[in-house]
Amino acid sequence: MKQSLAERAANVLTEIRNKKPLLHHLTNFVVMNDTANLTLHIGGLPVMAHAKEEIEEMTAIASALVLNPGTLSEEWVESMNIAGKKANSLKIPIVLDPVGAGATTYRTKTNLDFLNKLHISVLRGNSGEIGALSGAGGKVRGVESVEGIKHPETVARAMAKAYNTVVVITGKRDIIASANNVYYVDNGHEMMATITGTGCMSTTMVGAFIGVEKDYAFAAAAALATFGLAGEIAAKQAKGPASFKVALLDAVYNMTPAQLKKGAQITQA
Amino acid sequence: MKQSLAERAANVLTEIRNKKPLLHHLTNFVVMNDTANLTLHIGGLPVMAHAKEEIEEMTAIASALVLNPGTLSEEWVESMNIAGKKANSLKIPIVLDPVGAGATTYRTKTNLDFLNKLHISVLRGNSGEIGALSGAGGKVRGVESVEGIKHPETVARAMAKAYNTVVVITGKRDIIASANNVYYVDNGHEMMATITGTGCMSTTMVGAFIGVEKDYAFAAAAALATFGLAGEIAAKQAKGPASFKVALLDAVYNMTPAQLKKGAQITQA
Amino acid sequence: MKQSLAERAANVLTEIRNKKPLLHHLTNFVVMNDTANLTLHIGGLPVMAHAKEEIEEMTAIASALVLNPGTLSEEWVESMNIAGKKANSLKIPIVLDPVGAGATTYRTKTNLDFLNKLHISVLRGNSGEIGALSGAGGKVRGVESVEGIKHPETVARAMAKAYNTVVVITGKRDIIASANNVYYVDNGHEMMATITGTGCMSTTMVGAFIGVEKDYAFAAAAALATFGLAGEIAAKQAKGPASFKVALLDAVYNMTPAQLKKGAQITQA
Repeated sequence: MKQSLAERAANVLTEIRNKKPLLHHLTNFVVMNDTANLTLHIGGLPVMAHAKEEIEEMTAIASALVLNPGTLSEEWVESMNIAGKKANSLKIPIVLDPVGAGATTYRTKTNLDFLNKLHISVLRGNSGEIGALSGAGGKVRGVESVEGIKHPETVARAMAKAYNTVVVITGKRDIIASANNVYYVDNGHEMMATITGTGCMSTTMVGAFIGVEKDYAFAAAAALATFGLAGEIAAKQAKGPASFKVALLDAVYNMTPAQLKKGAQITQA
Repeated sequence: MKQSLAERAANVLTEIRNKKPLLHHLTNFVVMNDTANLTLHIGGLPVMAHAKEEIEEMTAIASALVLNPGTLSEEWVESMNIAGKKANSLKIPIVLDPVGAGATTYRTKTNLDFLNKLHISVLRGNSGEIGALSGAGGKVRGVESVEGIKHPETVARAMAKAYNTVVVITGKRDIIASANNVYYVDNGHEMMATITGTGCMSTTMVGAFIGVEKDYAFAAAAALATFGLAGEIAAKQAKGPASFKVALLDAVYNMTPAQLKKGAQITQA
Repeated sequence: MKQSLAERAANVLTEIRNKKPLLHHLTNFVVMNDTANLTLHIGGLPVMAHAKEEIEEMTAIASALVLNPGTLSEEWVESMNIAGKKANSLKIPIVLDPVGAGATTYRTKTNLDFLNKLHISVLRGNSGEIGALSGAGGKVRGVESVEGIKHPETVARAMAKAYNTVVVITGKRDIIASANNVYYVDNGHEMMATITGTGCMSTTMVGAFIGVEKDYAFAAAAALATFGLAGEIAAKQAKGPASFKVALLDAVYNMTPAQLKKGAQITQA
């Protein structure tokens, strides 16, 4: 089972390299450079555009839409809604990263609004963020989860069902849940928590994979396995978090389907 | 004397690692990624949030507020004022970085407004910026100090007294002045001037230290000694400014209290 | 001929190091950090400022103005126009990077407006972008050229004449055309396409060179030769795109006039 999931992940990676999915990002100022680079390294094309005058036209040519309201403001939220509606109307998949949901009322409300008004293909957050959005508890301080949810699979599945989406909770073991299906990913390295934006980067990674693979739950699992495996490789060369980040981005670019087939730790519940 | 100041600095670093102060940044677009990473590496938690809808709630949970109007606009200045007032009402310390004060009337005026309307715990700038704000002279070209102040200690102390703050002038020798006290920090390396944002990063570093240590003048001195020492370590491995930046961020993360105790060059006037 | 152009390029580099041109950037959020650093590394001073309250004052002290509407919005476009008019009135050269022109109507229109309303000293884009603006064809997907122009020299020269500017089309072989003159630059490395922002960085590089050299066509050629040569040097040390970027920025900083004189591949048509 495990072997075949890793092999399937490797095939999706090959697809990305062949099709070069265009990822339209409406994302936060902190990680724009890193996520644009990551998109290129995994094999996609990034574009960052948020002006109302062009959003719909840009979304229309995208393979996936990445919504990341990490440095949100009214104007950007409006633009994200326009992009989201356009994506929905054209059946372009959306991945949402609810950065800091739970830390302020505005962040929680904005992300719940997205979930209610748009059809989100994949929601990816940490345990605190998903906890806050689900109402199941969990605590967020700034943008960091400081208290997780007690029964994450149950919460993730219930939420996936309620919003007709795939819910991803990243952590030491990543949980990827649709209404009927749960995957676990055990790749990754603790160094990933020492730099800002690894959450945002994993969301972008999900964007690349759902840009070519319609089984969104599996695509998300494959994305996280790829990114986590790159983290494992990078950790071997790092002298600290900044050299780790350089090695991480290099490892994503250098990742071969064969490497992924060998190293992806994906299991199905 | 010197030994004991270094030891005290090391103890503050230990505090940061234990308490993980949350630093709410309203900062410029150029350095957001670097300062978020630096916050994590020194041991704090970064959050970047500027929307009026959430500012007060975010500031309220912060250990310190970092105001850096390096790419200012009316909207952001308004948000900074809201955050600043909230911080003052809750006695959360504020560090202000008057990026480019002196270069344009707007920058000078905006930063003087902050100093007049808010209680700023630490003001950190280069010699040209502090000169412009104090009226003591000094010249700024873009965001770089091209002409310093003649009697920096005198100016810094007078300004510290006038605004009931701590005034930090960074340079080859850093000067940290409160109304009654002056510290000098002799750590640092000339490579720090070859990358953008070392000023902003040192301000974030001050934010982390005042987030746990209430003697703000000493906290600022300890922050600059830590950052400068990291620069010294990084310079040994750098092949140029970009590899220096990687090594600098790594060195901040890897800095131990023991290393700081041995290497911090803090003296009291 | 070739030798003497390389020597002339080396002399312009020396000028930059001596004069430290101030580059006022109104640029996109994705590359701000990289282009600010690049400006410092080549020998200039960067400043990023976009508030209407200070734009004219900041532009007035600049050696060159860099307009890069890569993450454009109405407000920023307005600011770019104000800065551009001020630069024109003071005969400060402008380099324009029409990021993603052709991808959306808004991007094409905004950049044509700049060309029509302002006097642009150098227009630098990829083949798709210049194709879209010239009406000669070319296709852009997001911000990447996916289909070039058939007769780029002809198009570039015609456009240079029509707008009284220098048109630069970067690619494997860079083309730099004024109404009467065409240069080619054959420096560069394919690794440059693996990271985001090399286009934007080459535009900033052009800004530094036109900041000190009034023969804008030659200045642009010298800028691209310098940047391309840095790419060649960096490629030898890179393990992937992120370590390539570090090495690229280091190589720009470490570039000596002698190295450039030896390695610059500039020819005149």
